[in-house]
Amino acid sequence: MEIALIIGRFQPFHKGHLHGIKYVYEKHNKFIIGIGSALVSHTLKNPFTAGERLKMIFLGLDEAGIPRENYYVVPIPDTEVHTTWVSLVKTLVPEFHVVYSNDPLTKRLFKEAGYKVSPIPLHKRKIYSGEEFRKRVLLNGNWRELVQESVANYLVEANLLQRIIDLSKTDKPHKKNNVLDMV
Amino acid sequence: MEIALIIGRFQPFHKGHLHGIKYVYEKHNKFIIGIGSALVSHTLKNPFTAGERLKMIFLGLDEAGIPRENYYVVPIPDTEVHTTWVSLVKTLVPEFHVVYSNDPLTKRLFKEAGYKVSPIPLHKRKIYSGEEFRKRVLLNGNWRELVQESVANYLVEANLLQRIIDLSKTDKPHKKNNVLDMV
Amino acid sequence: MEIALIIGRFQPFHKGHLHGIKYVYEKHNKFIIGIGSALVSHTLKNPFTAGERLKMIFLGLDEAGIPRENYYVVPIPDTEVHTTWVSLVKTLVPEFHVVYSNDPLTKRLFKEAGYKVSPIPLHKRKIYSGEEFRKRVLLNGNWRELVQESVANYLVEANLLQRIIDLSKTDKPHKKNNVLDMV
Amino acid sequence: MEIALIIGRFQPFHKGHLHGIKYVYEKHNKFIIGIGSALVSHTLKNPFTAGERLKMIFLGLDEAGIPRENYYVVPIPDTEVHTTWVSLVKTLVPEFHVVYSNDPLTKRLFKEAGYKVSPIPLHKRKIYSGEEFRKRVLLNGNWRELVQESVANYLVEANLLQRIIDLSKTDKPHKKNNVLDMV
Amino acid sequence: MEIALIIGRFQPFHKGHLHGIKYVYEKHNKFIIGIGSALVSHTLKNPFTAGERLKMIFLGLDEAGIPRENYYVVPIPDTEVHTTWVSLVKTLVPEFHVVYSNDPLTKRLFKEAGYKVSPIPLHKRKIYSGEEFRKRVLLNGNWRELVQESVANYLVEANLLQRIIDLSKTDKPHKKNNVLDMV
Amino acid sequence: MEIALIIGRFQPFHKGHLHGIKYVYEKHNKFIIGIGSALVSHTLKNPFTAGERLKMIFLGLDEAGIPRENYYVVPIPDTEVHTTWVSLVKTLVPEFHVVYSNDPLTKRLFKEAGYKVSPIPLHKRKIYSGEEFRKRVLLNGNWRELVQESVANYLVEANLLQRIIDLSKTDKPHKKNNVLDMV
Repeated sequence: MEIALIIGRFQPFHKGHLHGIKYVYEKHNKFIIGIGSALVSHTLKNPFTAGERLKMIFLGLDEAGIPRENYYVVPIPDTEVHTTWVSLVKTLVPEFHVVYSNDPLTKRLFKEAGYKVSPIPLHKRKIYSGEEFRKRVLLNGNWRELVQESVANYLVEANLLQRIIDLSKTDKPHKKNNVLDMV
Repeated sequence: MEIALIIGRFQPFHKGHLHGIKYVYEKHNKFIIGIGSALVSHTLKNPFTAGERLKMIFLGLDEAGIPRENYYVVPIPDTEVHTTWVSLVKTLVPEFHVVYSNDPLTKRLFKEAGYKVSPIPLHKRKIYSGEEFRKRVLLNGNWRELVQESVANYLVEANLLQRIIDLSKTDKPHKKNNVLDMV
Repeated sequence: MEIALIIGRFQPFHKGHLHGIKYVYEKHNKFIIGIGSALVSHTLKNPFTAGERLKMIFLGLDEAGIPRENYYVVPIPDTEVHTTWVSLVKTLVPEFHVVYSNDPLTKRLFKEAGYKVSPIPLHKRKIYSGEEFRKRVLLNGNWRELVQESVANYLVEANLLQRIIDLSKTDKPHKKNNVLDMV
Repeated sequence: MEIALIIGRFQPFHKGHLHGIKYVYEKHNKFIIGIGSALVSHTLKNPFTAGERLKMIFLGLDEAGIPRENYYVVPIPDTEVHTTWVSLVKTLVPEFHVVYSNDPLTKRLFKEAGYKVSPIPLHKRKIYSGEEFRKRVLLNGNWRELVQESVANYLVEANLLQRIIDLSKTDKPHKKNNVLDMV
Repeated sequence: MEIALIIGRFQPFHKGHLHGIKYVYEKHNKFIIGIGSALVSHTLKNPFTAGERLKMIFLGLDEAGIPRENYYVVPIPDTEVHTTWVSLVKTLVPEFHVVYSNDPLTKRLFKEAGYKVSPIPLHKRKIYSGEEFRKRVLLNGNWRELVQESVANYLVEANLLQRIIDLSKTDKPHKKNNVLDMV
Repeated sequence: MEIALIIGRFQPFHKGHLHGIKYVYEKHNKFIIGIGSALVSHTLKNPFTAGERLKMIFLGLDEAGIPRENYYVVPIPDTEVHTTWVSLVKTLVPEFHVVYSNDPLTKRLFKEAGYKVSPIPLHKRKIYSGEEFRKRVLLNGNWRELVQESVANYLVEANLLQRIIDLSKTDKPHKKNNVLDMV
């Protein structure tokens, strides 16, 4: 059976991600989740650390009943040189055979490296997105419905939403706090 | 007495910075000035090198009569990984106990590292700002009134304003020289 | 005779570049071409690798009849610290005496390092540009007329235009594929 | 219950590591394994990639009957600056409270960061060591008895021992292949 | 008057350094001290951080009665590329005209960059050295006589000698703690 | 016809290198020379910059009558992560099909990346080596016979041997200048 690699940033791990992972799980049984931009955190677009995202992914997949025996989760830093990134991924994760991603650069780089690359079917893409989640946190909207219960509880207990709010502030006199920076 | 750490980019060192430092000096007596983004220079937003900014700070504080026995000035490079930045600061400067900053990211990072973080009172923030200074240099406005006399003299003698002018030029056919890049 | 250094990104190597190089060749006879941002590739603005650009330059100069004995071509990575970049260039290429560039930062950095810097005369700058080339590829326009025949053939044989098309796609629901990202 | 962090290089994952992990598992129940020097591989002292080591650890702990629900495994790159390393670890792994390590630098760095640090009890340290393993591979000794069966099988199936042998060769005329480089 | 740049690692700041600085101070009046390998710490050869070394230098020069108006102290990181290091130094410190150093690489690099480079007269070089200091700390020798009183007191109050002792330990079964690693 | 890639450090370009290149030239006609460790210079083992080595290679191959139409010369930096190095090479040079190297790590890395790797026949390996060259420079031996005439002349005219001599000095009181550091 071919082992699948799924790449995402998971800022945070939301129901759209879960939906895509279930699709891959059914087709491949064994898979690896690569947490992209692992060392980027504390920005409006990437508020959470790799450790926090790894935690959310395990909580979410546990809640969804996907056994830990069937997957690995590995943080993957960015590289400054795009063309070396695939080889960095290959150094950090165990063997895989096919790649699932919707990101044009990720897809192109793996294709050039000789991998079969497939898209992940999107589920309610307009609301199940990290961007929508972060916007709702800032605008006091219903962010809870975008993530699983265990993930929501973790975000509250670890007080991680306050980080998004803190980072949205600005000290520029001519600039209002602006959710647009988050996109 | 608690030693204060003040973080800024000082592009250039202007009267707003001096005002804030005086406030901290009165409260703490001893303080450390960290020159942020120390290795960034030669951009419209960050025209001056760390060495040039360090020189301006000492000139300005000498002019203001703050004795050198009461503070250190240390250039602090950025880190690619936000969460390692506080530990880089701690490696580069002597011991400090409280942090003064108005930058949301700086404040959040030091708070997560367990430090007490206070804002610096802003003084005529709309005119005493690096952005306003650089704009006035490009538009031939009165930039002199934004900095102390010793700093102004240094900028002229070292011919540093020409750097801002040179960097504002562009070779793009569809793009006029634009002060907006500076923000 | 003074040896000239010409710096460009060559994304791709187009007729405007050739025109500028011929101008320098006539004045200096011997010259070095530095391929700037050598490690940046696989972006809309910088689609080609250093190796691909080096190949295009040799193809183009061969076609133009400039003998290989008269020049070197050397990829030059960017540096994070602007002020160290000139010394990196000096490490990577053989001795040179004057610099040709139209980029404001490149010009300023070499000037501060004591070099004589001259502009490269632009030829039909509005159409002979990498930006125009990449736009025409995406909009199915006449990109062929912007490059030499040997370069055009190489781009087709190596199937490199598809990379620009692939990278122009997006998985953002609210964002159409947009040639503006390319600028 | 306090969560433990165990740091090692696991080149390869041997019975000494398993012994230490069992000790921590009994005391803490929940633990995180950080694969140190994650990006170092293909040297005599560090032959295996992070992905290969992660695979070995899961194989070994599965064989030992430690449930995957009780631990995470996360690759941890080195930092050039020692004093930023602990904050990198904290970014990459979920929350932990105590640290287990026998490495003097690791212990000192975590102690300075305020963590409780304990040694891992060594078990037959002279034979259960990565160094001894690599020596036996090169000298055709009994390396199998140093690792668990599942790990040994993986090393053979993935043909990873040949890498150690290949890397032990030298093209220096005055230098014999030398197992001492491995230490 | 020409401003002098003095480069050293100051691990720690000892009487030999003070002797050399006094010599430069008498000749130049104004000088800059660059703390080399600023980001290297927590090794046997380089135990102290840049912040700790900066503190020691100010303590020592205060004790020696050299007014702070006459010098700057600036931490200087290493560069991976030797030939870019001088330009990094120039970015980090205010203007200087001559360089004092005994290190062959430092001397050669500044000479190639066109600077006048002079040696620093050594004073009791065999005992006034960082290596001798660290050896005495480990062997319980008289390390106090190698540094000024204010420096010695700081080292004791900040409990920094324990770091050298901790780092000298080893977990290698075949290796005794060895002061030779320190050289 | 398959294009060959030859990797070496060329410190300096000596007759052994020329011999190997001639062998590859006869078999492949077209080849690429990658200058390894391109950014390492100013050490006893790696005294020359990439630009200087590139110059020597062209001088030597011109002297040997190998037409420039048949090869490219490209500097290749090291990577911190061994497993990303092959992809960096592929980014920097035009297409190649087989690799020639005697270095065990280079050979292994290209083999794992799926390339056919062949050794370069050694010619009088004990005297035609960079190490022997540098030793003879320091010991005032006959270094001229190890390199081609054009290379020897360049080394003298550019005064590059003095760099090796300067770097061999030491300021350590207990250490004599020692050619062994060069190996």
